[in-house]
Amino acid sequence: MEQTLRVCVFGSTGYTAQELLRVLQRHPHVNIVSLVSSSSASRKLAEVLPQFCGSPLGDKTLEEEPSEDFDLAFLCLPHEASLEEVPKLIQRGKKVIDLSGAYRLKSPNLYQEFYNFTHAHPEILQKAVYGLPEAFRDEIKKADLVANPGCYPTATLLAILPLLKEGLIEGRIVVHALSGVSGAGRKLRQHFHYPEMEGDFFPYSVEKHRHTPEMEEVIYEISGKSIKVRFTPTVVPSVRGMVSTVYFDLKEDTDLQSLFEDFYREEPFVKVLSAPPHPKWVLGTNMCLLYPFYDAKAETGVVISAIDNLGKGASQQAVQNMNLMFGFEETTALERVPLIP
Amino acid sequence: MEQTLRVCVFGSTGYTAQELLRVLQRHPHVNIVSLVSSSSASRKLAEVLPQFCGSPLGDKTLEEEPSEDFDLAFLCLPHEASLEEVPKLIQRGKKVIDLSGAYRLKSPNLYQEFYNFTHAHPEILQKAVYGLPEAFRDEIKKADLVANPGCYPTATLLAILPLLKEGLIEGRIVVHALSGVSGAGRKLRQHFHYPEMEGDFFPYSVEKHRHTPEMEEVIYEISGKSIKVRFTPTVVPSVRGMVSTVYFDLKEDTDLQSLFEDFYREEPFVKVLSAPPHPKWVLGTNMCLLYPFYDAKAETGVVISAIDNLGKGASQQAVQNMNLMFGFEETTALERVPLIP
Amino acid sequence: MEQTLRVCVFGSTGYTAQELLRVLQRHPHVNIVSLVSSSSASRKLAEVLPQFCGSPLGDKTLEEEPSEDFDLAFLCLPHEASLEEVPKLIQRGKKVIDLSGAYRLKSPNLYQEFYNFTHAHPEILQKAVYGLPEAFRDEIKKADLVANPGCYPTATLLAILPLLKEGLIEGRIVVHALSGVSGAGRKLRQHFHYPEMEGDFFPYSVEKHRHTPEMEEVIYEISGKSIKVRFTPTVVPSVRGMVSTVYFDLKEDTDLQSLFEDFYREEPFVKVLSAPPHPKWVLGTNMCLLYPFYDAKAETGVVISAIDNLGKGASQQAVQNMNLMFGFEETTALERVPLIP
Amino acid sequence: MEQTLRVCVFGSTGYTAQELLRVLQRHPHVNIVSLVSSSSASRKLAEVLPQFCGSPLGDKTLEEEPSEDFDLAFLCLPHEASLEEVPKLIQRGKKVIDLSGAYRLKSPNLYQEFYNFTHAHPEILQKAVYGLPEAFRDEIKKADLVANPGCYPTATLLAILPLLKEGLIEGRIVVHALSGVSGAGRKLRQHFHYPEMEGDFFPYSVEKHRHTPEMEEVIYEISGKSIKVRFTPTVVPSVRGMVSTVYFDLKEDTDLQSLFEDFYREEPFVKVLSAPPHPKWVLGTNMCLLYPFYDAKAETGVVISAIDNLGKGASQQAVQNMNLMFGFEETTALERVPLIP
Repeated sequence: MEQTLRVCVFGSTGYTAQELLRVLQRHPHVNIVSLVSSSSASRKLAEVLPQFCGSPLGDKTLEEEPSEDFDLAFLCLPHEASLEEVPKLIQRGKKVIDLSGAYRLKSPNLYQEFYNFTHAHPEILQKAVYGLPEAFRDEIKKADLVANPGCYPTATLLAILPLLKEGLIEGRIVVHALSGVSGAGRKLRQHFHYPEMEGDFFPYSVEKHRHTPEMEEVIYEISGKSIKVRFTPTVVPSVRGMVSTVYFDLKEDTDLQSLFEDFYREEPFVKVLSAPPHPKWVLGTNMCLLYPFYDAKAETGVVISAIDNLGKGASQQAVQNMNLMFGFEETTALERVPLIP
Repeated sequence: MEQTLRVCVFGSTGYTAQELLRVLQRHPHVNIVSLVSSSSASRKLAEVLPQFCGSPLGDKTLEEEPSEDFDLAFLCLPHEASLEEVPKLIQRGKKVIDLSGAYRLKSPNLYQEFYNFTHAHPEILQKAVYGLPEAFRDEIKKADLVANPGCYPTATLLAILPLLKEGLIEGRIVVHALSGVSGAGRKLRQHFHYPEMEGDFFPYSVEKHRHTPEMEEVIYEISGKSIKVRFTPTVVPSVRGMVSTVYFDLKEDTDLQSLFEDFYREEPFVKVLSAPPHPKWVLGTNMCLLYPFYDAKAETGVVISAIDNLGKGASQQAVQNMNLMFGFEETTALERVPLIP
Repeated sequence: MEQTLRVCVFGSTGYTAQELLRVLQRHPHVNIVSLVSSSSASRKLAEVLPQFCGSPLGDKTLEEEPSEDFDLAFLCLPHEASLEEVPKLIQRGKKVIDLSGAYRLKSPNLYQEFYNFTHAHPEILQKAVYGLPEAFRDEIKKADLVANPGCYPTATLLAILPLLKEGLIEGRIVVHALSGVSGAGRKLRQHFHYPEMEGDFFPYSVEKHRHTPEMEEVIYEISGKSIKVRFTPTVVPSVRGMVSTVYFDLKEDTDLQSLFEDFYREEPFVKVLSAPPHPKWVLGTNMCLLYPFYDAKAETGVVISAIDNLGKGASQQAVQNMNLMFGFEETTALERVPLIP
Repeated sequence: MEQTLRVCVFGSTGYTAQELLRVLQRHPHVNIVSLVSSSSASRKLAEVLPQFCGSPLGDKTLEEEPSEDFDLAFLCLPHEASLEEVPKLIQRGKKVIDLSGAYRLKSPNLYQEFYNFTHAHPEILQKAVYGLPEAFRDEIKKADLVANPGCYPTATLLAILPLLKEGLIEGRIVVHALSGVSGAGRKLRQHFHYPEMEGDFFPYSVEKHRHTPEMEEVIYEISGKSIKVRFTPTVVPSVRGMVSTVYFDLKEDTDLQSLFEDFYREEPFVKVLSAPPHPKWVLGTNMCLLYPFYDAKAETGVVISAIDNLGKGASQQAVQNMNLMFGFEETTALERVPLIP
């Protein structure tokens, strides 16, 4: 029998933490030893998040600091808090999966431009492994620190990974991506007040978004090419779900369908379809569904990609990374059948 | 190690079947041997329901008739189809859990009034056990045929069960219950076309609804009293979820909170709260959350009850019944932590 | 040609103000001379509320205090602010329509219990006219101060007005009412954050709500009877709309349909239907749709009432009151055809 | 005083007709003399569409054929029905505004490819004026037959009109456009059943859509250039609203903001913003909001355009065309302030 992994979750009340705890509480090899929350310390989990009232986890008390020893920390913290917490944990010999963006970019100077802080730990940045298993599985298995990818980059990179490997993309690409509102987190904002968000949908941060350099860096790491990403994130009136559509110049027809099917044949969480995927078909799962096709009249290649922004786009991918890091079956506790209808 | 149960699902493409298959496909003691569907026979499950594209179940072919032997049949059929199918299965020695209303009422003559058919099998009606475990657990364990309760009756009966046992209800009760649209099934109707249903919410079938006699009969069975139910079902613009509010005359204050907590202390899927429950706190689970209180000024007792209409209100309760019938741990494969946000 | 009325709106950025301005800007006899807003003073309206970017009103600057003289003030302020503002305006000889609850109750002592303040102006309270035209049209025409009714009381009182006049209601009534989220206003709250409110619906303030004494007082004023209201407000995932269902003991069948049709025959904004009304059929209008029926088995009378909580339930009713106070055609600028789909 | 125009609406129960009737019933110079509906003939309008129960129009009987003479016909019919109806009306000397696509394309042969029928009236096709007032106002004023533009082309063409006039677009453009579900009409489909559409959003008809040649033809007519459109329509879980984002190669920075503001300064229904527009800011109106900007890193020009697909995208634009054709003030009866919240 496999050993039990002692897990501590930092920042236990946000949306990524909620999804993470939902999955971890039924993982057969995980023991959630500590729930850390600065804002809700000393309250029981179910008091803060009543959805846990039916689970033993609901009776667990949130803590200012972890009171028990642990093997792995999940950080569901703001970027700035993760930036500071990671080095301390690494120094104490803990393994870390960081769901923030604090260790995703390799170029420290990009942090100033896109995150509004100077990155104080550039050496740790270089050791962090980007937690996209379909691209970096071997590195993740050996990693001490995994930077869990952003939701938009996950959907988008999986949409172009086979193309990058084949050298089919040159020049800039256009990425028009739609996200459910949960991607913006639990923090209240006027736009996301129910009476204002219902029936509305709109591009935002169209001139500058943190996920643009994240995508460009990983594209470079995989393909060796400096490909510019014209990125338009768009929020739609749905809680979860993400659809990323990628456009790229392609002069000649290529059998994209076969290319993608061959590339992803062995991947447990990626499926290539022959029609546009719906995010509802992956709700609550770790799946990514892809549909590539060629528009011959407009000489444009197009790939449409659908994930659950909190599933494959965040917390379930984090658990997939955990499974890889600790030698568990990669699919353990992860879902492939969505909650439908 | 426990044996594997061979299960056949009849009517495999409706909403209750979709939820049932989602739960059964991860049940450790279940082998889904046949998926029967008259409308989609010979197509693969994932062709009809693309959400199963990530699961091995998606490759299974739907059949006109079950091609393999099985131990238990779940019927996710229209009432009329269940009416005819059940006797055949019983005669062949199969155990049956029927999710339709065809075997829920004990009085055959009520079928004419509320279901528009003459019940041809009154003797089987008498043998059917009403599958509400919190009221009839022992009977369910020994049953060959379980009539799985309606969603409104499940939410409502759990809201008044302790009161019925204590004899606290006399005269008529008012039940005002809200349901997500999935309760009306997968069949298309103008009212439920997205552009008409978004932003709308309305009582329907207010003069006559099938669940009224179902509630009245079970109330009588439990309490021995003929209590009339004034029932107002109301559809709200949500996919899932159900909230039933029950009003009853109560002259004196009673400690409803203690009564309910004592009554449900050992139940794995019922939780008594100290504030109104939200259906979102049980989304995708088999939980029922209750909040009883007394309005002293209006001399009215009130209980608010929340379930997932497709979870505890249908398919997960069906699996709970299966677990009881076959001696599995009652909570196996059932969820208590919802998909939130 | 009729004269132009100079109007000042206090509290110009909340939801009732937004709806009020939408209607007033096309009223042929109204000139909006001042928009007062303490929170957004000196900004242009369209900067704060971009939906006014296509209207000349969008260029108007919000003010700390009204800079021009006016004939009528609409108060879209918090209760406490209205409480203080009204006496000053009355003293200056202005007519006032107050959309808050500060002058709706006749018993000053109820304010302590339900509004958490001591009412400092009980004499003005007695002069305020409750702005429900179908009950108090003549008084409204002569009023200096109109207390515009709450949304729940509007829907509920219109549902029972004919019954009260006929003396058909005795004892307590049960009011189960559903409201869109806009009824809770523009202020951010965790419950109403889009990812939490979508797919959720729940009773709230079930033990104590400000609209309970408002309904009980007006019922007494109309019928001379002390009828207790068991009131359960419930929020549903919709922006607008309200459905109130009223239950009352009724031993004998009465032709409720004829009673209601006769009673409301001349009312321009009330229509009696022969089936449950949908709130979407009144979206953006000043209409109230009613459906009364008798449940003979349960010996219960039931009336279902639908309004737009911001239309007849707030701002359009306020304009109806204005039309009455100033001798304009009662229906001027008010809508009877909703925005559908 | 202006004369009254006698109007007949063909196809009176679909969504474009519903919006059209809502606007026409308050137009001061319009008399709706006939409502033609083959599917609901001899029923009263309010029986079929209960939202008209508060309006005198609700009592009007739907007819198989118009029983009274009229000056102008609005066709809210399927393409095939419009195809046949238009020539008959033209021959009888009636003016026609056709909301279908039957007379939008100039090349008859495109109909075979995109509409699956042979166009039997190519000569009438040449006489039809494309009803986009911002591009063809003078022609509309003199037209006998106006082909009212599609919703996607309206949003998209307004987004590029200034660029086309300046010759700033070469090569292909990428159009990624989002639409509320009402754009797909009133006809029931499984995808648009509420329990399936809530929480879902997905590209559709990505390889071939009727609006692609419509856009390409009008672009050619305006600019004289054959610009290919890579078009991805996407449906989002909202009733109304449309956001079109257009991407085009642009090597050098241009002051797009000034260009657009100058171009649209005198237009009553177009407004240029300095941030991405929200479709909710135009709900129920005839407005189009635009935001153009330049992505210097990716050397891409971007314009974001928002309309109400049933307002400026269909029925209100049709009324704008009517106002132009008959010499009424262009803005009569049209809205610029949306229903918010």
